[in-house]
Amino acid sequence: MKKVAVILSGSGVYDGAEINEAVLTLLHLSKAGASYQCFAPNVEQHHVINHLTGEVSNESRNTLVEAARIARGEIKPLAELNAADFDALILPGGFGAAKNLCDFAVNGASAKLNNDVKVACSAFKDANKPAGYMCIAPVMVPMIYGKGVRVTVGNDAETAAAIEKLGGEHVDCAVDDIVVDENHRVVTTPAYMLAKSLDAAEKGISKLVERVLAMV
Amino acid sequence: MKKVAVILSGSGVYDGAEINEAVLTLLHLSKAGASYQCFAPNVEQHHVINHLTGEVSNESRNTLVEAARIARGEIKPLAELNAADFDALILPGGFGAAKNLCDFAVNGASAKLNNDVKVACSAFKDANKPAGYMCIAPVMVPMIYGKGVRVTVGNDAETAAAIEKLGGEHVDCAVDDIVVDENHRVVTTPAYMLAKSLDAAEKGISKLVERVLAMV
Repeated sequence: MKKVAVILSGSGVYDGAEINEAVLTLLHLSKAGASYQCFAPNVEQHHVINHLTGEVSNESRNTLVEAARIARGEIKPLAELNAADFDALILPGGFGAAKNLCDFAVNGASAKLNNDVKVACSAFKDANKPAGYMCIAPVMVPMIYGKGVRVTVGNDAETAAAIEKLGGEHVDCAVDDIVVDENHRVVTTPAYMLAKSLDAAEKGISKLVERVLAMV
Repeated sequence: MKKVAVILSGSGVYDGAEINEAVLTLLHLSKAGASYQCFAPNVEQHHVINHLTGEVSNESRNTLVEAARIARGEIKPLAELNAADFDALILPGGFGAAKNLCDFAVNGASAKLNNDVKVACSAFKDANKPAGYMCIAPVMVPMIYGKGVRVTVGNDAETAAAIEKLGGEHVDCAVDDIVVDENHRVVTTPAYMLAKSLDAAEKGISKLVERVLAMV
């Protein structure tokens, strides 16, 4: 059975992991007969957004504790992720990827990775194990893989330009498709950077999961 | 296009809507070409559970505001649900259904419904429009439909006994199947009352969505 580590960044599109993307990732891993373990960094969220009003809420929440809602409690601190125990890695998106896993939402092309994210994701790269990043999460890929890695976030010009500044090569991609960098063994898909429906998001996410598993 | 109202009860299995059940419901509505609108009661949650530790957390959260995380902000207060605007109703489960939509988790067979839930769900019954309830949510069905309505929560003897006390008829059911009460036009499935995997939960939930839409 193929074993996949999934890194979440909270629970909710505006301050954490995009819930649909996370569930669809786990669903397609489950349907493919793969096993998975969720992880998240044990850090305070960048902030909390009231998802009804869109406003910043005057409270603090922990990224790992909130991500546990998606994982039904079956989640571990990201610092405990050992790449040797897994065959592949997948990161769903949501603003949490750009706010809690790195600071791209604040610093754009000057972004830095959370240290646990850097260590964990680099370990998969160094072991030449395949990885999938979706939605906004691909902005982290050049920070991990270095110059020339090919990724997509769909067709958002500003984000694509920031990815190029970070050293990546951005490739435009439709919501129901994936971009595969065979050399770096990285698969990306736009998901909710473009998706207008769950149905559309699922098409790209299921392709990403299928390709990542096929590369194991 | 068939229009379906979905009632959520927060976001997270232990104090709100079961996230996987909610997303799979919306996914299969989307795949079937139906439109949906999410609702939740604008009330404080019964409590907040830290999903990492399982312990009660010393904070308060609002059921509607948290449910907005699953709905990506596209959600309305349950008091605004007008059954005349929809063809069918679906309620995912999670402890939130038994803690925030009614008080079954505390009062068992003496449970009472939240008033907005009572008004909204009764309106679908009175209009003879089909409804689906999954996981623990079917405990509410006898409180809405009265004596003799047939439902399932899987095979949990204690919950089944409480449903019978409330006036319902419990039918044991496998995780990948549904129970249909054709007279009352109510469909139920065990979902995470029995599911050990997302794959298993999806089988019953997709059948429930398909049947509810077929009854429109």
